[in-house]
Amino acid sequence: MKYTEGMLRDGAMEGKNILITGGGTGLGRSMGEYFLKLGANLIITSRRLDVLQQTADEMQNSFGGKVLALRCDVREIEQVEKMWAEANAELGQIHGVLNNAAGNFISPTEMLSANAFQTVVDIVQKGTSNVTLTAGKHWIKNKQQGTFLNIVTTYAWTGSGYVVPSAVAKAGVLALTRSLAVEWAKFQIRSNAIAPGPFPTEGAWSRLLPGELVKKFDPAKKIPVGRVGEHQELANLAAYLMSDFSAFVNGEVVTIDGGEWLKGAGEFSHLDQIPNEMWAQLAEARKKK
Amino acid sequence: MKYTEGMLRDGAMEGKNILITGGGTGLGRSMGEYFLKLGANLIITSRRLDVLQQTADEMQNSFGGKVLALRCDVREIEQVEKMWAEANAELGQIHGVLNNAAGNFISPTEMLSANAFQTVVDIVQKGTSNVTLTAGKHWIKNKQQGTFLNIVTTYAWTGSGYVVPSAVAKAGVLALTRSLAVEWAKFQIRSNAIAPGPFPTEGAWSRLLPGELVKKFDPAKKIPVGRVGEHQELANLAAYLMSDFSAFVNGEVVTIDGGEWLKGAGEFSHLDQIPNEMWAQLAEARKKK
Amino acid sequence: MKYTEGMLRDGAMEGKNILITGGGTGLGRSMGEYFLKLGANLIITSRRLDVLQQTADEMQNSFGGKVLALRCDVREIEQVEKMWAEANAELGQIHGVLNNAAGNFISPTEMLSANAFQTVVDIVQKGTSNVTLTAGKHWIKNKQQGTFLNIVTTYAWTGSGYVVPSAVAKAGVLALTRSLAVEWAKFQIRSNAIAPGPFPTEGAWSRLLPGELVKKFDPAKKIPVGRVGEHQELANLAAYLMSDFSAFVNGEVVTIDGGEWLKGAGEFSHLDQIPNEMWAQLAEARKKK
Amino acid sequence: MKYTEGMLRDGAMEGKNILITGGGTGLGRSMGEYFLKLGANLIITSRRLDVLQQTADEMQNSFGGKVLALRCDVREIEQVEKMWAEANAELGQIHGVLNNAAGNFISPTEMLSANAFQTVVDIVQKGTSNVTLTAGKHWIKNKQQGTFLNIVTTYAWTGSGYVVPSAVAKAGVLALTRSLAVEWAKFQIRSNAIAPGPFPTEGAWSRLLPGELVKKFDPAKKIPVGRVGEHQELANLAAYLMSDFSAFVNGEVVTIDGGEWLKGAGEFSHLDQIPNEMWAQLAEARKKK
Repeated sequence: MKYTEGMLRDGAMEGKNILITGGGTGLGRSMGEYFLKLGANLIITSRRLDVLQQTADEMQNSFGGKVLALRCDVREIEQVEKMWAEANAELGQIHGVLNNAAGNFISPTEMLSANAFQTVVDIVQKGTSNVTLTAGKHWIKNKQQGTFLNIVTTYAWTGSGYVVPSAVAKAGVLALTRSLAVEWAKFQIRSNAIAPGPFPTEGAWSRLLPGELVKKFDPAKKIPVGRVGEHQELANLAAYLMSDFSAFVNGEVVTIDGGEWLKGAGEFSHLDQIPNEMWAQLAEARKKK
Repeated sequence: MKYTEGMLRDGAMEGKNILITGGGTGLGRSMGEYFLKLGANLIITSRRLDVLQQTADEMQNSFGGKVLALRCDVREIEQVEKMWAEANAELGQIHGVLNNAAGNFISPTEMLSANAFQTVVDIVQKGTSNVTLTAGKHWIKNKQQGTFLNIVTTYAWTGSGYVVPSAVAKAGVLALTRSLAVEWAKFQIRSNAIAPGPFPTEGAWSRLLPGELVKKFDPAKKIPVGRVGEHQELANLAAYLMSDFSAFVNGEVVTIDGGEWLKGAGEFSHLDQIPNEMWAQLAEARKKK
Repeated sequence: MKYTEGMLRDGAMEGKNILITGGGTGLGRSMGEYFLKLGANLIITSRRLDVLQQTADEMQNSFGGKVLALRCDVREIEQVEKMWAEANAELGQIHGVLNNAAGNFISPTEMLSANAFQTVVDIVQKGTSNVTLTAGKHWIKNKQQGTFLNIVTTYAWTGSGYVVPSAVAKAGVLALTRSLAVEWAKFQIRSNAIAPGPFPTEGAWSRLLPGELVKKFDPAKKIPVGRVGEHQELANLAAYLMSDFSAFVNGEVVTIDGGEWLKGAGEFSHLDQIPNEMWAQLAEARKKK
Repeated sequence: MKYTEGMLRDGAMEGKNILITGGGTGLGRSMGEYFLKLGANLIITSRRLDVLQQTADEMQNSFGGKVLALRCDVREIEQVEKMWAEANAELGQIHGVLNNAAGNFISPTEMLSANAFQTVVDIVQKGTSNVTLTAGKHWIKNKQQGTFLNIVTTYAWTGSGYVVPSAVAKAGVLALTRSLAVEWAKFQIRSNAIAPGPFPTEGAWSRLLPGELVKKFDPAKKIPVGRVGEHQELANLAAYLMSDFSAFVNGEVVTIDGGEWLKGAGEFSHLDQIPNEMWAQLAEARKKK
């Protein structure tokens, strides 16, 4: 079977109610649609309810299942708590939370005000913490099992220039994932993360590298497998980690980037630029020594 | 659906020929049986052909598909090359290699002779390198795609006392995985690894911690999710990483250990031993300051 | 020479002006005192000027050099910018920044309000970001070289239960360190970090594990080298990383914890509890097979 | 003080006897010469005694201290044991071991025979294991303290194409370092590692990238700090880790590469190629949205 097809058996997420922050666009929407196909219901949130409601309707019409659209700025704990209460009132127990909402832009760090810097950090780190605390406390209090899946990046552990507030925040989300995976496991709450490489979307990647930049810095060129990712590939991995099939995976971050970060990290991996005939000469030279 | 069931859609590995070293027992056999159910054919190898052939027959009878049993000491490159040639002659193109053969025992390192130390290293590191070089060269020469999946451990990157030769060798296998994921991706050859925590088997874990030791050092106690793994859980992950669904996962090691290594690593995670009433007292004391 | 003595040659930090946030107590003070001995001047900051001024006087009297005490809540960018301007006005060019200010307490995460959670994150992550942005922009604008040294923890990358807001924030600081090490190196600005294990202080560790807890959870027991750290050991490492001797170390986090986190992380490292005679029996049993 | 000067106080290694494998050339020699200056005596080993003896004489004449040259192929355990016995007979107790001997060359992995592959692995992994087992057993038996310092590479954990056998072996050495740091700490034996980036030497780097290659692939271009390392910088770090000043550093690998591997690893760090005026345009464009 091809990687552009769904992987899990039909009904694999039957009866699950899943909250996806930032679920109305881009990768959040793609993952959500696959969860719907597998039998789940969704709660999707963002700051703009009109767009979100329209998306919810479209998703519901196309894939069945319920899709509840709720306005929520994840940076505000009161909004998060209200959204969580409404979602529970409407759909009953929530089984999983996909922390997907994010903000990011590329910039030299010295051009950022402290305020601009912290704005990105707040959406990603504070937003994820708010949603996680709210869901976790509810699950613990009500003795419900639950699963967290957090979207991070490969620069959550390597760092990266030019996206520094995002790196700071995503590193924090990864630490949150690993810490609670250990601490809250006794309550039957699992936590995992995905670190996606480039998956082109209207909603994110094209904003990061607009217009001519995406041509000049074609991400595919940096990726060993020679292409960017397809949304279904991410959706397959997310469905695995959100489903019960991954019950023994806990505290893990799975990278799906075609090998991008490792290629850059490896000290001699750029020697793929040496032509074949030169390798032969080098081998000859070694033999003569 | 439950984690003891198969995850992938029927036929997900249809038409794939997969080589599993050490495939006649334990986890190697469990993964192989699931691959068979998903439509694959297998080549399984070990040093004892009689046992292996019987296993192959049993597997074939139970799950359909072809199971080819080939004698091979993976430490010997000539045996590996012969085995590889026979497998190709018998089944045609091989699509994936699961480097699963291993040796290990617990011992204080100072009680090991240099020879005993290197014996474990050879089975794991040299064996994996031999099989990988043989398969990779063949795939490259014949312009065939291929997938490597290597079984490592969490101490491949943390190290561990009392299993040091295994740690040395598994770290080497992880470096092999990551290096070739980058270097050989241009030939459409992917490489990934799995780091399993405790999955009880006749073939491995019980040899590591025999008899009373497994009671005294019950692995489940160290694992946040409170239990050891089920073979099907590992098989689901292995099938994902061996199938085309993971085409954009490359150079990755996925840990499936219930959070075991992270719990030990986290500086304050052992504070789960503090009783609830003391937490309340501590919170009170903080407020008074 | 012993590890309780100073390591660097006399005058190794002659003429350097170093800012230490949270420099009036605990480890910050110990590192500062050694920098003074090596010839540096200091700016130390905290929220309580009275205590700080007294400390500055004591340090100046004991070790020579100038010690400037400046009130600053690092969470407030205006206060940071004012402090930075005053420090430059008073001492001239600042050569290094030691981001040491921190807040932390142990608690089950579900007992924390979103507000309490974010308070710790703000002191550590936002505080460090504020100081780093302010210093970095100034250095870049004025074409001055500079060195950042950030105090993190081992759970910045492993996570840890019961100190989760600190883990989130310290992970963010580590990502900041690594990101700017790469991005700002072209301006001759280096960034590194230290991850200390347990170093007993009045100011921090005893607040974390008060009274009987520190007895029950004696940190030395978890540490392979069998003891906690001495302040001079941390000061020696910090002086190395702050001095020009480490000019080629960039983006690195150096762990100084006696091996604590690795011991916990290693799957079989707890087998040091097996008595010697049992190892002999196990070796015998293996031979018989 | 400058990074081309020695960092440690005079006499910092007085009375220490240090074994350096591969100590007659390149970086091994540079580290050894600094140890001599600090008061240590050396044992240096390699396969060619004539060259080695001459080097030992030169070192002794220039820096004082004793330098004992001993022939030893570290792949052969008998030779290692003999060398160790002679060194102890000649100099008395050995206090530290610097595992520095290595072999490496660049090549596409598919061009390597299994034999050539294993030859590199043997020098690095088996050689280090042999020396470490021999020294450790002796120290444990004779209740002597000891310190291991192992030279690895940044691709010990990232992997790298085109130097795959070296990556496999160095990863193994890193696992050895971390494992024994934990297991042998109870015997007062510490283990650490250094991962150096490019430090030009006659002995190693120029063999890796001969002639025109070193021009085309100028390593300095990949390094954030804009230059390769100076031998004294590595010697300062090595002296710190070999001396008692680092008594609480255990199981650690310190990277000294100017930020090289992190720059490659960071997903957007290559955006340093975007000119300043384009950053201004991007900022403008963001404001308009």
